[in-house]
Amino acid sequence: MIEAVSWNDTGLTLVDQTKLPEHCEFIQIGTIEAAFDAIRTLKVRGAPAIGITAAYGLFLGMQQSNAGTPADFFEKIDQHVAFLSGARPTAVNLFWALDRLRNELRELPDPTIERLNSNLLGLAKALHDDDRNRCDQMADFGATLISQNAKILTHCNTGALATGGIGTALGVIYRAHQQGKNIQVFADETRPVLQGARLTVWELHNANIPVTLICDSMGAFLMQQKKVDAVILGADRIAADGSVANKIGTYNLAVLAKHHGVPFYVAAPLSTFDMAIKSGVEIPIEERNPEEIRRVFNQTLITVPDVSCWNPAFDITPPELVTAIITEKGVIRPPFEKNIASHFKTES
Amino acid sequence: MIEAVSWNDTGLTLVDQTKLPEHCEFIQIGTIEAAFDAIRTLKVRGAPAIGITAAYGLFLGMQQSNAGTPADFFEKIDQHVAFLSGARPTAVNLFWALDRLRNELRELPDPTIERLNSNLLGLAKALHDDDRNRCDQMADFGATLISQNAKILTHCNTGALATGGIGTALGVIYRAHQQGKNIQVFADETRPVLQGARLTVWELHNANIPVTLICDSMGAFLMQQKKVDAVILGADRIAADGSVANKIGTYNLAVLAKHHGVPFYVAAPLSTFDMAIKSGVEIPIEERNPEEIRRVFNQTLITVPDVSCWNPAFDITPPELVTAIITEKGVIRPPFEKNIASHFKTES
Repeated sequence: MIEAVSWNDTGLTLVDQTKLPEHCEFIQIGTIEAAFDAIRTLKVRGAPAIGITAAYGLFLGMQQSNAGTPADFFEKIDQHVAFLSGARPTAVNLFWALDRLRNELRELPDPTIERLNSNLLGLAKALHDDDRNRCDQMADFGATLISQNAKILTHCNTGALATGGIGTALGVIYRAHQQGKNIQVFADETRPVLQGARLTVWELHNANIPVTLICDSMGAFLMQQKKVDAVILGADRIAADGSVANKIGTYNLAVLAKHHGVPFYVAAPLSTFDMAIKSGVEIPIEERNPEEIRRVFNQTLITVPDVSCWNPAFDITPPELVTAIITEKGVIRPPFEKNIASHFKTES
Repeated sequence: MIEAVSWNDTGLTLVDQTKLPEHCEFIQIGTIEAAFDAIRTLKVRGAPAIGITAAYGLFLGMQQSNAGTPADFFEKIDQHVAFLSGARPTAVNLFWALDRLRNELRELPDPTIERLNSNLLGLAKALHDDDRNRCDQMADFGATLISQNAKILTHCNTGALATGGIGTALGVIYRAHQQGKNIQVFADETRPVLQGARLTVWELHNANIPVTLICDSMGAFLMQQKKVDAVILGADRIAADGSVANKIGTYNLAVLAKHHGVPFYVAAPLSTFDMAIKSGVEIPIEERNPEEIRRVFNQTLITVPDVSCWNPAFDITPPELVTAIITEKGVIRPPFEKNIASHFKTES
């Protein structure tokens, strides 16, 4: 399994995802500036992977700053957090991870510079470990839903390249494969940014899991031909009623799966649930740059240069189209409003 | 309105569709070799447009051959038909058009060289006129289904660039626009070959009809947002029960339209109906070169070079998902088996 983000004695190592799928290049990150640049230029992507990279980047920045006193340390850390947060202004997970680290350091009793620095590294590693463990737990629960010889359709990239572990939906696929289930995967190319074609195909190829690439319009016919036993994909955000916001095209597959009687599974950690959002209609829809549609890889022009485009980054799947949600604490089934609530009650 | 194929005193003129949408270049075709080349290299595409180009190409070839006797004429015509048929070995319409011309010439009583040549040109023009008229008739019938301010989703290219007239589904859109209906069109990009992004967007842009380009995975969310009042698209072949074989992605839209209560219209001339085929399951599915998916425009690699791809050229939409079929003789509604049959009975 590829590791998108790894830390060892020599420091931080990333897979340069801008070079995939043609080349798999590992890059060493020795400074906060290099970490910032890697996040900004999409060398590392996927909310959890970005948060973990930023956490290690913060540690590298504090090593460079060489603060003399705890007051100096916290002044520098504020500067570094502000700097790193500018790398991807829309990446909520990035702010969340950095804020969490800073707050935990502030609560340290009787801080010394040495303890602050070693705790910062410890917290970054714990963030990474937490994510890795959550992925493993989701994979374990999710794999129970995958039968022998299953043909699975997935969308976008939800694997090792997006997380600190083996991924969410793709983690379930890895685990089912590890269990010898002889699975076969169909990967949606996932226009406009082609994460499926570029990243999911590369990951599965690399892991020797049989994968077939299709265009996003082909899933319907694939299901009609009885070539899909389950759809499994990730989530950006899940509302309290079980509505799922995820990469554009997710809702398309959900409608198709319902029509063809194919189970539709969402794999996402509990941190994805936003209990303050009651239903999907409250989730704002981000529209992205039309150039993503007009030009493949910001280069190859496929249409009239100035044509109007509609480019929503994600869509909303209503809970009645979701068969089950796979989390690190178990599989949540309908009725979602009740079962999600009771799940969070158990957790609190 | 652009004319993809036109004939006047100076000969045959084509829009070089390989240069679209960046450049609109017209090319003069003065020889059968140039016509062959234009078909082979996809400068002209769309079944009716190919057939018409071949017919004019056959006339140009006979002018070059300068046959001395009727026997010589028919010998030469056989050679030319064989030659032109090799330009697109899978284009049924091409063989059909050339065969029809040759057979009609053979039935000419007391043929002279002059009459054979002038009849050949007349037949080519008649083929062209027939197609133009069929397009106009479909447009008239179809436009009655389009309401004021309608938002219409279409797929692939079914317009002036594909036919000898204003097109099939896109012809309906042109006519509704001409009637001042203030319509708005959403065009699926239509992966893998991107006919929607390249050709439909260009045609509509050129005709000043408001068009918004979307990726093929976005239609579901567009319908959920109540931004689609009707889906209208073409057909490659229609079975006796009303099953529709058309560009991959058509069935996807049909399922979505059903789920969202959006009317799903197919516009196709009666020549598209294959009464020998009882239902959709009998229609063979052509799988195309996986490189179409792996590389955009045969160039930009979007995935792992040798990854397995599934690339069906078209899909089959069952009749229960079709609201109505628009033909040059009227709008056919369910029950399709009965109404298609009675329609063909009326015609015979």
